[in-house]
Amino acid sequence: MRLVMATFREIGERGLVDMIRRTVLRDGSPDALTDDASVLPRGSGDLVVCMDALTFERHMPKGMTYEQFGWMAAAANVSDLASMGARPTGLLASMNVPVSMDVADICDIMSGIDQCAEFAGTYVVGGDTKPGNGTVAVTAIGSMEGRRPMTRSGARTGDVIAVTGPLGGPAAGFHAVANGIELKESVDCLMEPIPRVEEGIALAESGLVTSCMDLSDGLSTCVNTLCRASRVGAIIEWDLLPMEEGVRVINKALGIPEKDMVMDWGGEYELLFTFDRKDLDAIADTDVQFHIIGLVTEDECMLHRDERYEVIGDGRY
Amino acid sequence: MRLVMATFREIGERGLVDMIRRTVLRDGSPDALTDDASVLPRGSGDLVVCMDALTFERHMPKGMTYEQFGWMAAAANVSDLASMGARPTGLLASMNVPVSMDVADICDIMSGIDQCAEFAGTYVVGGDTKPGNGTVAVTAIGSMEGRRPMTRSGARTGDVIAVTGPLGGPAAGFHAVANGIELKESVDCLMEPIPRVEEGIALAESGLVTSCMDLSDGLSTCVNTLCRASRVGAIIEWDLLPMEEGVRVINKALGIPEKDMVMDWGGEYELLFTFDRKDLDAIADTDVQFHIIGLVTEDECMLHRDERYEVIGDGRY
Repeated sequence: MRLVMATFREIGERGLVDMIRRTVLRDGSPDALTDDASVLPRGSGDLVVCMDALTFERHMPKGMTYEQFGWMAAAANVSDLASMGARPTGLLASMNVPVSMDVADICDIMSGIDQCAEFAGTYVVGGDTKPGNGTVAVTAIGSMEGRRPMTRSGARTGDVIAVTGPLGGPAAGFHAVANGIELKESVDCLMEPIPRVEEGIALAESGLVTSCMDLSDGLSTCVNTLCRASRVGAIIEWDLLPMEEGVRVINKALGIPEKDMVMDWGGEYELLFTFDRKDLDAIADTDVQFHIIGLVTEDECMLHRDERYEVIGDGRY
Repeated sequence: MRLVMATFREIGERGLVDMIRRTVLRDGSPDALTDDASVLPRGSGDLVVCMDALTFERHMPKGMTYEQFGWMAAAANVSDLASMGARPTGLLASMNVPVSMDVADICDIMSGIDQCAEFAGTYVVGGDTKPGNGTVAVTAIGSMEGRRPMTRSGARTGDVIAVTGPLGGPAAGFHAVANGIELKESVDCLMEPIPRVEEGIALAESGLVTSCMDLSDGLSTCVNTLCRASRVGAIIEWDLLPMEEGVRVINKALGIPEKDMVMDWGGEYELLFTFDRKDLDAIADTDVQFHIIGLVTEDECMLHRDERYEVIGDGRY
């Protein structure tokens, strides 16, 4: 439903706040959004928080709707909670948008944020809107419910390296849109990424994961980041990397190397994690789908492909 | 200490993140700032959260340093926690600043945020920096430690209305700077407002406060807001209003009406609160300094001054 057409400038901050409140209020919303601060259900166990902002300029590719942009801003943060194994308990959003922007578009951003909150089993519980150039900062709050938080720094030499799903979809989707190629599933990976909330919870619940992070910076950068934090190295096996189906289509159509899409791109929301190989059966007993892609070593981060080893440099993120 | 001169564009986001980390890391910082999300000490009792952004354009008056702007962005949120009676347990900050901005200035903003965190007994535990027009969004997280959160909606007819300190300082400070008048204490009220953290905690601890909010929108607007939320009215006694000393100086020097400064300005960080008059002694037994300024009524919000009653309209915020 489109709201009455009006700009941020015309309706003013208070008018907008009222509309946004109506956009995000759902059955079960905490008794919030009326005072300056909100009281949240506190869950149990450790409290986990994160905050990250997306900008129209950099994070809104051609063809993305404002609703999808809002989803993305929320998903980026929900995914950071997921990588620790936290269950989201509340989102806050601070929007910084042009005063010439249509109120309906602003509400679409909040609606996208709220849809991601709903997907993650939680609510938008606060935030504000200010005039600016187009940045949406989201804070996500979560609860460990007794689980031990997964971090980047626990990988040990000999551990298995795994990912929760196929890679390269966002890159394939980007090239598809840019070149007018029909590739719905890849485009969905780009525009409406699914943060791996339940997967993160189940992996933390197992107690067997030695390190974990999300792949939002792309596989190359993330393998390096995780290994630096854990003071280890890695061998990634090219032939084991699960590829989103559009990657091969784009490679054939446009000649873009698969590795660029699968390893050096970003905006992936699968989880990268490690565990002791003796725990493989136990990890397989969780409901989490995963693919083993390599091993933790003592040395550098290397890619093994076509019987050659090459150092994995950071990707474009 | 000034850091090496360089702009955000020159140093890049990663370089900046490292510098900011070093700016805000203190003894006792949670084991955070290395993963995408941070684990916080969870305190006890209800969890309280808020998020509000300030912009260079609107919230950085002439003469304010970047450090003071950072303090202010944090203080605005810490004050929102204080108005509920929560103890701050963590701050996150998302900065949106021009790529041409000097890294030292950006770090000064974070240093101001961190100084306010330290004043409030807590830490900066996360956030990010993105290119933009100059907006700093802060999320504050707090813990009720078993106290019942104070809200805006509990004032009852017959309750006493009080404030925690003198009003009008930020307005007097603004006019002093604008007109080159030496008025240090008022200027401090404007540039480095003190959020009433311990006062809020003590008031909530008493269990006797029926409603509370901070005065960041100015007394006129806040009396109206609190009374609307509580479905009551008020009489504010002009002769009881505590005035910051600079108010009279500015009034004499520039002819600006005292009421404009004391009631209709914003950026005040004192708390406005109500309680049953039978509890006056008990409230006086807390360590909180306060001034009674009026009574809750059934009718409109009125100002009683010079034997006349006038309706209190919203102020300029």
